[in-house]
Amino acid sequence: MGNWKQQLQEQLRLAKQASRKMALLTREDKDKALTALGEQLLTDEKVILEANERDLAKAEADGQPASYLDRLRLTTGRVLDLVESLKQLVALEDPVGQSMSRWTLSNGLVMEQIRVPLGVIGMVYEARPNVTIDAAAIALKTGNAIVLRGSHSAVNSNLALVKSMRDALTATGLSPEAVQYLPFAEHESVDMLCTANGLVDVIIPRGGAGLISRVLKTSSVPVLETGVGNCHIFVEKTADYAMAEAIVLNAKTSRPAVCNAAETLLLHREWPASCQLELLQRLIEAGVEVRACDVTRKLHPSLSASLLQATEEDWDTEYSTLIIAVRTVDTLEDALEHISLHSTGHSEAIVTEDQAAAQRFLTTVDATTVYHNASTRFTDGGEFGFGAEIGISTQKLHARGPMGLPALTSYKYVVRGTGQIR
Amino acid sequence: MGNWKQQLQEQLRLAKQASRKMALLTREDKDKALTALGEQLLTDEKVILEANERDLAKAEADGQPASYLDRLRLTTGRVLDLVESLKQLVALEDPVGQSMSRWTLSNGLVMEQIRVPLGVIGMVYEARPNVTIDAAAIALKTGNAIVLRGSHSAVNSNLALVKSMRDALTATGLSPEAVQYLPFAEHESVDMLCTANGLVDVIIPRGGAGLISRVLKTSSVPVLETGVGNCHIFVEKTADYAMAEAIVLNAKTSRPAVCNAAETLLLHREWPASCQLELLQRLIEAGVEVRACDVTRKLHPSLSASLLQATEEDWDTEYSTLIIAVRTVDTLEDALEHISLHSTGHSEAIVTEDQAAAQRFLTTVDATTVYHNASTRFTDGGEFGFGAEIGISTQKLHARGPMGLPALTSYKYVVRGTGQIR
Repeated sequence: MGNWKQQLQEQLRLAKQASRKMALLTREDKDKALTALGEQLLTDEKVILEANERDLAKAEADGQPASYLDRLRLTTGRVLDLVESLKQLVALEDPVGQSMSRWTLSNGLVMEQIRVPLGVIGMVYEARPNVTIDAAAIALKTGNAIVLRGSHSAVNSNLALVKSMRDALTATGLSPEAVQYLPFAEHESVDMLCTANGLVDVIIPRGGAGLISRVLKTSSVPVLETGVGNCHIFVEKTADYAMAEAIVLNAKTSRPAVCNAAETLLLHREWPASCQLELLQRLIEAGVEVRACDVTRKLHPSLSASLLQATEEDWDTEYSTLIIAVRTVDTLEDALEHISLHSTGHSEAIVTEDQAAAQRFLTTVDATTVYHNASTRFTDGGEFGFGAEIGISTQKLHARGPMGLPALTSYKYVVRGTGQIR
Repeated sequence: MGNWKQQLQEQLRLAKQASRKMALLTREDKDKALTALGEQLLTDEKVILEANERDLAKAEADGQPASYLDRLRLTTGRVLDLVESLKQLVALEDPVGQSMSRWTLSNGLVMEQIRVPLGVIGMVYEARPNVTIDAAAIALKTGNAIVLRGSHSAVNSNLALVKSMRDALTATGLSPEAVQYLPFAEHESVDMLCTANGLVDVIIPRGGAGLISRVLKTSSVPVLETGVGNCHIFVEKTADYAMAEAIVLNAKTSRPAVCNAAETLLLHREWPASCQLELLQRLIEAGVEVRACDVTRKLHPSLSASLLQATEEDWDTEYSTLIIAVRTVDTLEDALEHISLHSTGHSEAIVTEDQAAAQRFLTTVDATTVYHNASTRFTDGGEFGFGAEIGISTQKLHARGPMGLPALTSYKYVVRGTGQIR
């Protein structure tokens, strides 16, 4: 039994060793390997889909729900999507080697701050097998080695995808050891990865709140936390009705399962009652379950049958489905207070025609992204123009909000002297 | 007994609350408070030194060594140093509110990335009480609240200093709750601080390897690791003798207890034997204990009585005193291999007249700071021109190397729209 632990340690050692070579690659080296990977995925498509079928059959036999099977499923279309995203990655600039700043000290030392890869990335993720290629490709583009630990239910799909990746690395003269997959069912393998200080430089967990909190608790390696989004929209008293309706409906209903969807609507009491009523009606017509506070329900008795009673718990719930919590607030400051107590610091929006109110909101609210008169749904690396997204960080260290390629780099200081001593 | 835990929780809550106000302060507000603190320290000097005397008496009675007492001791001179460093801090730019980047999307959304404070900093540190003021002042300048947990042996000194700090905040109209001191002797209080996710945004441990490793293991809050320095100097075959001697002696002997001091000397076998011999003699004359590998000892039989036998353990030891490990290597690649195996990634130097060798070293070595023809002793926020230093980060996330004020900030995206939806 101790055998898998030795194998894991050996994989980490190989990844660390490979990371030293990866750090020295040119953009051309890396782009050639990414292009080769795209071709390899097309060549290997049949093998990959067969492996995926085995995972699907097992998951079905285990009685997993349809949404789970959908996340797990690979199709020709999804493989083509992966190939397309590899092409986009090739087109992006390589951050590694960029000079971030340069200055000369009075003693003549020439100082330069240069972007370098992080080293070895540990990636712990759940069912979706496309993350395997996305993460490994972004790691390669940024000169990092990566150790992947996906959901055991996707192990066949993931191993097939990793084989394509390693074959593409070998074919273009790079070390296949830069991509390691941990196929071990044991949960302890996650703990070992998260405490491998000295061999792993960062852990990125992607998945549900349970996974993320487990990783945060056990990891002594620094973690890049991609967290949950309990996002609010505050409709201020001067809000334009049509704009408020468009933004609220878009933020709640366009894709309710994602982290940048809205979960709570805060209504300024002084916003015209007719506007409030109409907005609530539109939500209900759109199939949204509305859970409202007492004040809201009393203000709109005509909707009493449709407005469920919100409880304290609702203010802290990321529904990820067509449910919205609604609270009436007396003032902007009350809205700010509610958000500060219940926000997860992801994305928060105000709809208002009052510039001073907007500025107060944008300055005060503590979140990765704060919006004036726009939907929270824009918090996304693609929308931001980053080209590739590793995830959305909800922590404040290192990277916050949508993370592009630079989030997978660090820097070092290079100092050139002529014999200076201190 | 459960009482101190409640008090600690309450202190964290107050710090979090205060941090929201701190984030909105102008540079003027903060500089006024820092100036007031300088004056307050002068006013309170007698009280502070008396409190320090009590800590010193206790430490002496406990049989602590002289070096410990020296770190613990406050004097009029040291208080004046603190006042001076506050003046320097006032002169520094405020990073908070700076626009880091700004762009417009094709849909018209105006995007801006703005520096913001981290929020609440948890600082865990050992004996030196001046860290109390240094850390709290830097936190104030960057708009953060801070929760301090110093060594219990300095509790009287630290509480006196914190009182001055809080009085200065109150006197200038700011919230004294932005600076909290945890006076609890219980080690568990450190654990509680390090797992207060949602209330504390970052933990900074400053002290010995034991403290840092304990914090890394227990903390679920992100940690800014300030680690140990096992620094190397590689004297390449083309090195200028006088330069090599100056750099090696400076790096080893100018202040052996600090983390940027050299611990291992790697000698290129092809560097003239006479140079090698002379450099080793100079080290010995300077009172340095030299622990050499077999090859080095055989190459210099005349020094056999003075060259101790190095063991494998020596390559991984941060002596922090006048001892140096010496190893003869055949090639630049061997030196790089030794460093990659034994470096703690702090500061590494090459002495060479060969530009290609220098470039290979600077590119390949993975450390916060890499030097060509300069002493490792320059790895320091003051020397780098940062004006203030929170510590030297040896991790790759967020901040690496000497950390100035921006290391205590994060950023947020501010998005201004005209009703955009996705």
